[in-house]
Amino acid sequence: MTVITVCTTCRRTDADPAGPRPGAQLHAALSKAPLPEGVSLRAVECLSACGRGCAVSIGAPGKWSYVYGDIHPETHVDQLLDGAARYHATEDGQIPWRERPEILRKQVIARIPPLPQKSRPQDTQAQDPQAQDLQPPQPQKSERT
Amino acid sequence: MTVITVCTTCRRTDADPAGPRPGAQLHAALSKAPLPEGVSLRAVECLSACGRGCAVSIGAPGKWSYVYGDIHPETHVDQLLDGAARYHATEDGQIPWRERPEILRKQVIARIPPLPQKSRPQDTQAQDPQAQDLQPPQPQKSERT
Repeated sequence: MTVITVCTTCRRTDADPAGPRPGAQLHAALSKAPLPEGVSLRAVECLSACGRGCAVSIGAPGKWSYVYGDIHPETHVDQLLDGAARYHATEDGQIPWRERPEILRKQVIARIPPLPQKSRPQDTQAQDPQAQDLQPPQPQKSERT
Repeated sequence: MTVITVCTTCRRTDADPAGPRPGAQLHAALSKAPLPEGVSLRAVECLSACGRGCAVSIGAPGKWSYVYGDIHPETHVDQLLDGAARYHATEDGQIPWRERPEILRKQVIARIPPLPQKSRPQDTQAQDPQAQDLQPPQPQKSERT
């Protein structure tokens, strides 16, 4: 199951400070849309990316999780849903670069690899084949280049 | 098990571009330090927070995951380890604000709540008590205030 997590308290600099929170508007817009197969939606109160609102995360068990910012609550809904569907179709959460909707290429705030399946008392990346799985399938210096 | 994930390809604007990568230096410094009880270390090649290097993540199964940026590979090592130990001692990953080392208060890039334990086809936050567990224990608009 892929989960889109939306910060409902997010603001945007272009929004009326006295109006509805853009984060809540984004969540409402996504709630009304038909979600792609295997994708669910949830609301949280803060993703600690307040300077980059609206902020959302896309994640799934065993995959890389991504956080995106500067999301517009109206114009970016379709790209978000398309991106979530493409994410869901991947094995590790890494959508091939050229297949990513624009906001998933240009508005990444951070990404986190999945946690190891078993505990490791020290850094054993070199010895543990699991750790290799946590890396991008091909060496890459950055997702942004 | 709490995991500190270090981006080893991270640069810093104050570092020599021709010198060793500050991210690799940070990982090396953490590798040499005694890790707190229950804390492990791993390296990855990119956390997609390239503008905020050095970047690290702290996470554990079932807890909020955090990404921090602008980490200095020498002067911030002690705070990172202290923060990881405090994180490990929490139930949900949220260290009480006043107990956080400075870099964990001021250098958060983003945080992600743990994924739900079971799949939910639509947004059921209001009905599902699990979803409530994913929120901060007390309502809060932002972690940064």
